[in-house]
Amino acid sequence: MTNRAPIKLSAYLVGTGMHIASWRHPHAQANASHDIDYYKRLAQTAEQGKFDFVFIADSLAINEESHSNILNRFEPITLITAMAGATSKIGVVATASTSYIEPFNLARLFMSVDHISKGRAGWNIVTTRDLSGNTARNFGREEHFEHSLRYQRAKEFVEVTLGLWDTWEQDAFLYDKENGQFYDRSKLHRLNYKGEFFSVEGPLNIGRSPQGRPVLVQAGSSESGQNFAASHAEVIFSHKNNIEDAKNLYASFKSKAAAEGRSPDDVFIFQGISPIIGETDEIARKKFEYLESLITQEHAFSFLTEYFHGRVDFSPYTLQTGAADIGLHLLDGVRFEFQQRQELIGRTNPTLRELYSLLTGSFGVEEFIGSPQKVADRVEHWYREHAADGFMLMCPLLPDGLDDFIRLVVPILQERGLFRTDYEGDTLREHLGLSQPSSRYEQQAVPQQP
Amino acid sequence: MTNRAPIKLSAYLVGTGMHIASWRHPHAQANASHDIDYYKRLAQTAEQGKFDFVFIADSLAINEESHSNILNRFEPITLITAMAGATSKIGVVATASTSYIEPFNLARLFMSVDHISKGRAGWNIVTTRDLSGNTARNFGREEHFEHSLRYQRAKEFVEVTLGLWDTWEQDAFLYDKENGQFYDRSKLHRLNYKGEFFSVEGPLNIGRSPQGRPVLVQAGSSESGQNFAASHAEVIFSHKNNIEDAKNLYASFKSKAAAEGRSPDDVFIFQGISPIIGETDEIARKKFEYLESLITQEHAFSFLTEYFHGRVDFSPYTLQTGAADIGLHLLDGVRFEFQQRQELIGRTNPTLRELYSLLTGSFGVEEFIGSPQKVADRVEHWYREHAADGFMLMCPLLPDGLDDFIRLVVPILQERGLFRTDYEGDTLREHLGLSQPSSRYEQQAVPQQP
Repeated sequence: MTNRAPIKLSAYLVGTGMHIASWRHPHAQANASHDIDYYKRLAQTAEQGKFDFVFIADSLAINEESHSNILNRFEPITLITAMAGATSKIGVVATASTSYIEPFNLARLFMSVDHISKGRAGWNIVTTRDLSGNTARNFGREEHFEHSLRYQRAKEFVEVTLGLWDTWEQDAFLYDKENGQFYDRSKLHRLNYKGEFFSVEGPLNIGRSPQGRPVLVQAGSSESGQNFAASHAEVIFSHKNNIEDAKNLYASFKSKAAAEGRSPDDVFIFQGISPIIGETDEIARKKFEYLESLITQEHAFSFLTEYFHGRVDFSPYTLQTGAADIGLHLLDGVRFEFQQRQELIGRTNPTLRELYSLLTGSFGVEEFIGSPQKVADRVEHWYREHAADGFMLMCPLLPDGLDDFIRLVVPILQERGLFRTDYEGDTLREHLGLSQPSSRYEQQAVPQQP
Repeated sequence: MTNRAPIKLSAYLVGTGMHIASWRHPHAQANASHDIDYYKRLAQTAEQGKFDFVFIADSLAINEESHSNILNRFEPITLITAMAGATSKIGVVATASTSYIEPFNLARLFMSVDHISKGRAGWNIVTTRDLSGNTARNFGREEHFEHSLRYQRAKEFVEVTLGLWDTWEQDAFLYDKENGQFYDRSKLHRLNYKGEFFSVEGPLNIGRSPQGRPVLVQAGSSESGQNFAASHAEVIFSHKNNIEDAKNLYASFKSKAAAEGRSPDDVFIFQGISPIIGETDEIARKKFEYLESLITQEHAFSFLTEYFHGRVDFSPYTLQTGAADIGLHLLDGVRFEFQQRQELIGRTNPTLRELYSLLTGSFGVEEFIGSPQKVADRVEHWYREHAADGFMLMCPLLPDGLDDFIRLVVPILQERGLFRTDYEGDTLREHLGLSQPSSRYEQQAVPQQP
């Protein structure tokens, strides 16, 4: 690929950062997750760094053990709306589940933000994992939809959403005051969708946005998740700990997209990385260790007890106890994420402190902990090896991690010609180099009315 | 009431204004309904006028005959989020229906905006009217819930929403970095609501806002609507064409609220008015007539044909034909709003142009068309006669109507000591003089944990 697009960058914004104990860090603003001025500053920082977009994750339930950053936090769609108002270029992507909202409401909310942001919105499509049933019970259900059913519903949900976004053609509005013609009736369409799960007549009560419609983002590690992403997503988010796994997933997504008749260049694979940057590799490593030291034994054991369904009594142990030493890697029937990591745990025997950190998403992959030079090298390497088209920064500590990356790593990437020095356009599609989709009805050569 | 609160003011913002032909006016920006900069300017204007809040109405379906301002417009919750970002004092109220969204989603969206706006949000609770079934068919249903069922659902819906807003106590978050205590577990509660229509476990994943929770706004002209409003609403919106009807409704709401054990001073009755202001009464009247002249016969007859279910052939008539002359006031079984106006139509014999204007909500009550002095006098009169605590400006033409009122009428009301000259506080509750509600769990004297 000689004309391969330069590296894309995005920032996963979540309160004080991904690390479970980040809120205790002296640099962290502990109430960050519900301080709108804080989020506006982060978005402005990412825009100064010329990032493609900021990204907001979501969940629809909490319990007493939840990460401090998600206990009391903004709803993502309103949050990206507010961040759009504090910026003028950067894309704003929010997560929303297909399992607990009506497609008409979702299509409308996202198209509205796409207008408010003047064409900078994206929807990260999730189907929601809910092993405990916590989420289901917030929505009048006893348990969540079973995995494959979730994806069948999601497929219809996305069809309906895309359909509603097409009900107005891009140039439907005439505003002809003289002749009293507000719009062209031949360019308004009903959807009349009737599926297994959804029936939606339409039209949507908002027209197309300056970028046509919001960008579709998706993550999917399961087989059905991957297939779903390959057929719909314009940005795919992946999170692999090593370059070999990342390259395999990258190749798999690109070939699945091609099999769906799409150009592999219209699907961008973003790898999640959690860089910690210091003047030297040693300083960066110490920064990570300091974060780990902020974990309290009380919280870690309370979380792990609940995580392992009360099957392990942690009271005889300390945070320095090895997870494999006490046989945790042999426990069966725990959780999907855990089963995927059993081999790693058995092999590396992390301390209970490290295991807690890992299971709560704090990460800390050696490869992206180090000097600006080292991190830039690794980013370039992953990009050149086709392990990623772009990177989602999941900083263990915010705002430090984002500030450091933009101040120290971005200039290196720019010097190497790997990343933009300014925005080329105004919409998220323009940042990504995606063409603007037209309404399905605009394809028709035959006029609707004589 | 010697200590009666001064007059409250709010602005109903909708594109080019309430008048059906307002978009054709030379001063109107025809694409206003989806131009975010336009709405931000309107909100800033209302804030310069020291208004209590701006108000966004809603509907969940359109058809080919819909008012130009609602065909392509913002979703209200994202719109008030954006307007909150462009202002710092004025309240922002959005309409949302209890019939087509899950209470967990709604409770979360509004509490999120309440944080984003730093305590300036309000929710206008509607149950949605949908005689044609248009809305129902956008949400997988064949027809809408029947009237009384809608209110039973709405009652539960509001109980769930208030319950979710209470699940975090106001001072639940400790942010104690030293001791690793992010929050006080005794101040987090599950709702465990199980009703006829909704079952919601909770807790909500966002805490209480700077004003406790969003202000509840309601309109309800039917008996069940009035009862519902009296038991829950802090702001009640009414729309009566004459002071006697307004006084009766005002007294009815206040006594119903008292019967619910509430202080009548904690319920504010806002009357919708549609002022048109000119240097003289004659100029104001001409302004209204000019707006009416922008109505096209084609659109009026197309609307009226659909409105009367095709039972009347309008082709022999003109816009000057009298509605009673052709017997329209005798038509039965049309629509609820129409049946309420039959007597008026029979008595005043409006032209078809005027009828169209009336049925599409363009209004034009003689009483509020005139010089600044006359309009200020009428506002004061309605206030002193207990026909209203406040007024919702439903300007036939925007932004002109709002600009005129703020530039010409507000100073008169201020001179008379009837309206504030600056904001006294920062939240919508402070503007209205409402005390901040606490979570139901904060009432308990007994601690949750030893």
